[in-house]
Amino acid sequence: MKPVYLDYNATTPVAPEVVESMLPFLNQHFGNPSSNHPAGRAAAEAIEDARMLVAAAIGADREEIFFTSGGTESNNLAILGSLLEGQPQGHLITSEIEHPAVLGPVRWLELLGLEVSYIRSNVDGVVPPTAIKAALRNDTRLVTIMHANNETGAVQPLAEISKLLEGREVVFHTDAAQSLGKIPVQVDDLGVDLLTIAGHKCYAPKGVGALYVRFGTKLNAVLRGAAHERGLRPGTENVPGIVGLGRACQLLSRRGEELQRQIGALRDRLQARLRADIPGLQVNAEKAPRLPNTLSVSFPKVAGHDVLQRASRVYASTGSACHSGTASRSATLENLGLDLEMAQGTVRLSLGWSTTEAEIELAANELTHAWQSLN
Amino acid sequence: MKPVYLDYNATTPVAPEVVESMLPFLNQHFGNPSSNHPAGRAAAEAIEDARMLVAAAIGADREEIFFTSGGTESNNLAILGSLLEGQPQGHLITSEIEHPAVLGPVRWLELLGLEVSYIRSNVDGVVPPTAIKAALRNDTRLVTIMHANNETGAVQPLAEISKLLEGREVVFHTDAAQSLGKIPVQVDDLGVDLLTIAGHKCYAPKGVGALYVRFGTKLNAVLRGAAHERGLRPGTENVPGIVGLGRACQLLSRRGEELQRQIGALRDRLQARLRADIPGLQVNAEKAPRLPNTLSVSFPKVAGHDVLQRASRVYASTGSACHSGTASRSATLENLGLDLEMAQGTVRLSLGWSTTEAEIELAANELTHAWQSLN
Repeated sequence: MKPVYLDYNATTPVAPEVVESMLPFLNQHFGNPSSNHPAGRAAAEAIEDARMLVAAAIGADREEIFFTSGGTESNNLAILGSLLEGQPQGHLITSEIEHPAVLGPVRWLELLGLEVSYIRSNVDGVVPPTAIKAALRNDTRLVTIMHANNETGAVQPLAEISKLLEGREVVFHTDAAQSLGKIPVQVDDLGVDLLTIAGHKCYAPKGVGALYVRFGTKLNAVLRGAAHERGLRPGTENVPGIVGLGRACQLLSRRGEELQRQIGALRDRLQARLRADIPGLQVNAEKAPRLPNTLSVSFPKVAGHDVLQRASRVYASTGSACHSGTASRSATLENLGLDLEMAQGTVRLSLGWSTTEAEIELAANELTHAWQSLN
Repeated sequence: MKPVYLDYNATTPVAPEVVESMLPFLNQHFGNPSSNHPAGRAAAEAIEDARMLVAAAIGADREEIFFTSGGTESNNLAILGSLLEGQPQGHLITSEIEHPAVLGPVRWLELLGLEVSYIRSNVDGVVPPTAIKAALRNDTRLVTIMHANNETGAVQPLAEISKLLEGREVVFHTDAAQSLGKIPVQVDDLGVDLLTIAGHKCYAPKGVGALYVRFGTKLNAVLRGAAHERGLRPGTENVPGIVGLGRACQLLSRRGEELQRQIGALRDRLQARLRADIPGLQVNAEKAPRLPNTLSVSFPKVAGHDVLQRASRVYASTGSACHSGTASRSATLENLGLDLEMAQGTVRLSLGWSTTEAEIELAANELTHAWQSLN
């Protein structure tokens, strides 16, 4: 029997329409967009078309979109591009539940001298705006808070946080890798200056991403070289990847909301089935506004890793991001108040465009049997 | 009539075999290589297979290969990864004829406090080892010299330079973006510690590259995040791109030399035709060992831009990298001793796997007629 892929938060398939849009740029239109002949100009035009589609998906102007190699590079460009200089000065606010692609550059800046406040989420998985407000200083230069948490799906109150920053000289960045395509991502509603997009989380290929940079936001290049992407990101553009990201954003804009309603219903059904069948099962971040596709559950008294090993047709992740054998738990789960045992019992199930009702039933059965067999 | 693409140094087409190798990783095997289920493991294995093929092409061990988003990022990782810290200390040697993807990070380090020696090439386009030797200091930490120049094709004496560095604590980096697939690139013969590979210059797609890092060479990550590529390059791997780069390297290893002999003969024929038909035509870097596919010529008394505009079926680059209308010349051409007029008359013609004899004849005719019509 076919496996049930419930790991869309790790990566999505590339939509068939996206692959189709990319093929001409792998096969025929291979020119270098910087070349001043028709083969180059065709590639350059394709990039600008894609820029428009990405911008449209998030309510931005196309000149505010810069293409990168992915979400990690976009986060680095946002954070290091704002603050990396000889000896970084001042203060930055982030949360404990950010993705490593945000915490990585933040910790590097901290090593180089920047002061950093790491805000905890509450037990529902939400970073409280009041805590951000309390941490704000006169020399705060950047606030970076993710839009939706990758482990729990908890959506963060970005609009509220952005209100706190009004009238201050603070740049507001969000990593929207997990939210784009699952909930509305409109840069003006969120009030952000910088926003990270990762292609492979939204049905575009791996190896491409984008950074939204609001007009007027000061940013330096991190990688240095020629003048591609208006001087902000050097290197010959990944034309097929960029075209694919544009097409994926067009699909998200057209069908995203309707699909997410269906996906949300399937997620709720999976949650209800597991809760009914597994006494003591905990649903994480249940009280938070959550991504409609994400379900983080903690199985009582067993390791998530073991559950997934026995439910071998269900492809999903352990929510604790612990490597088998080591007894660590992610900051996200620790912030929720999960003890080590519950953290290790955590499994993240994330649904997507191709998920069917039959798959949900199969997954619920497999997971339940796996849990029962371990007890 | 079909255009004649003679701009392979700007970018190559993706080889059909390479596209074919990538498709399964766009369509079916879309898992995240970090995921601990069969979909993830299939992707992770494909990356390791590609790593072996890339290593084999340059005589390296597979653990010495790190995948990046392209040549620019590889150069940044090599240079910034060696030297970027709060206030960089010491001395670096490079040449005036390097690609912007090398000069960009070098100039940034210089701004931050590193001392830099920029060595000129001689009039044949070759950076003299004696000049490197003279510039060496006790606090020299990195020498970065390209393998082959992108404008003239002049091959640099890396083996000689590496001998000068023996017994010193100096890291030796080369940008081999233009040489791989055109001449032998064997890391031990060249004596380099770090070597940059760019996919889209060697029949792999845009958006992928690699950095060779000799065992024992100290290097820090530049982009920061999760622990991909053994901590040196974070971000979910561009699986289809990496698979394509591996396949391209396999093709290069198998058929590269034979094809380059044929290409060299075609290049020599084009050179002879143009020289016979255009009095006063100058062949740049003719006395240097040159890439077999590259021909840089300076047309007397006309702008290269205008020649290419009239020879509209020939897709090539002006060698001077000057934007139409501005009167600048590249450092590479300036180092050759070209005056402004000859620099502006320069055209780079670069051949590749698909170039035919008929195309060469057509290109020679078109370029000659274009030049004649401008006189």
